[in-house]
Amino acid sequence: MSIESNQQIFPITGVGLGPGDAELITVKGLKALQQADVVYYPATSKNEGKLTSYSLKILENYHLKAHLKPMLFPMKSKRRIEYYDFAYKAIRTDALKGLKVAVVSEGDLLFYSTFGYLLPLAKADSIECELIPGIPAFIHSASIGQIPLVEEQEDITVIARPDSFSQVERAIEEHSTVVVMKMSILKDDWVLFLKNCNRPFFYIEKAGTSEQFTTSNASELENREIPYFSLVIFTSKSV
Amino acid sequence: MSIESNQQIFPITGVGLGPGDAELITVKGLKALQQADVVYYPATSKNEGKLTSYSLKILENYHLKAHLKPMLFPMKSKRRIEYYDFAYKAIRTDALKGLKVAVVSEGDLLFYSTFGYLLPLAKADSIECELIPGIPAFIHSASIGQIPLVEEQEDITVIARPDSFSQVERAIEEHSTVVVMKMSILKDDWVLFLKNCNRPFFYIEKAGTSEQFTTSNASELENREIPYFSLVIFTSKSV
Repeated sequence: MSIESNQQIFPITGVGLGPGDAELITVKGLKALQQADVVYYPATSKNEGKLTSYSLKILENYHLKAHLKPMLFPMKSKRRIEYYDFAYKAIRTDALKGLKVAVVSEGDLLFYSTFGYLLPLAKADSIECELIPGIPAFIHSASIGQIPLVEEQEDITVIARPDSFSQVERAIEEHSTVVVMKMSILKDDWVLFLKNCNRPFFYIEKAGTSEQFTTSNASELENREIPYFSLVIFTSKSV
Repeated sequence: MSIESNQQIFPITGVGLGPGDAELITVKGLKALQQADVVYYPATSKNEGKLTSYSLKILENYHLKAHLKPMLFPMKSKRRIEYYDFAYKAIRTDALKGLKVAVVSEGDLLFYSTFGYLLPLAKADSIECELIPGIPAFIHSASIGQIPLVEEQEDITVIARPDSFSQVERAIEEHSTVVVMKMSILKDDWVLFLKNCNRPFFYIEKAGTSEQFTTSNASELENREIPYFSLVIFTSKSV
């Protein structure tokens, strides 16, 4: 598609939706969505092509005039890059038509987020992007648990998709505060690990939703399946 | 002060103002401020008792009906805990009068923030708190620099007030992404360090203000004083 010589091209606006509570979007982010012609949101295809989208649930609260379009990202696929390319081409086509295009992510845009993959594609095309950040899930989770994350000279490390408990253990030994995201990849042995680790912790799943569950007691996780939207904060404070 | 038996006590609402751009507050946070009777904000006394407050500059954009009250926290004082106690007592007095009290912080509430010190005092008094998170400065800075912070199995470490460059160096060796906040404590040798470190970096000061300055080139920091509101992101991506 070629650019019409007199066509005004708007920057692609990335908007971090925040962690799930629709009101935890920023004022700036909500304004951008209200002004957009098209809003692209990440969606996952599950069984038999049925789409699920955490972002769409958030977007539906805003009653936007924009056309909402899914960007399909399979949970597990070696062809993921093709999906990014495909999503980006659609975004680009709309942008070159002179439409105001917004692209959303849950949480922040650049913190374990799909937008991080689209951004280099837009840059390579010299299409300007404007980025409006959002609250990452671990920041929201600390508010829910009322746990000061870091103070003074403390440090904090966030790891995601840990592939071994020794990785988690090393992080806990070396840092004041440790957040583990996408902990479900380690499957079962969390109860044992949490019982034996020497740190107070705060576990939270489905933060801010009606299904939210939190605990600081490892026994309460026995026989519980750890879902994808879960994280744990290891702290040096009492919980 | 005793609680009147028939007096309704509202929770103390903590509100993260976000990183400085007034529109980067959350919708929920702004609503809470609009409904508050009193808003406490952190302020610093500098030369001859003159107050400066980054938070107040943000608050003034909202034209709130609330009474705005400073909480005085000196930049450097061994008596800091006394100042927290003093601020908390004023907050408590207003809460027990049945006023809707909000307490704000720049950035998030629990990420290197004053609110982390007030929270245990309220808990000890069994005064309920409701916390509304805000965008931390490093998340905003990544958006400004358009730098994906972490993807997939990468990790990120945030350190503040580092007391040696070897601490910074170790962090860079061990983690995919490193953010150094309150870097001014190390004073002068940043140019040399940044020239010799093997990582692309993004430096930003006074993010989101009219005085914002950014660079990824160490030479541009020569003879430049690093202010308090500055941070640097070390990344594994090109900048």
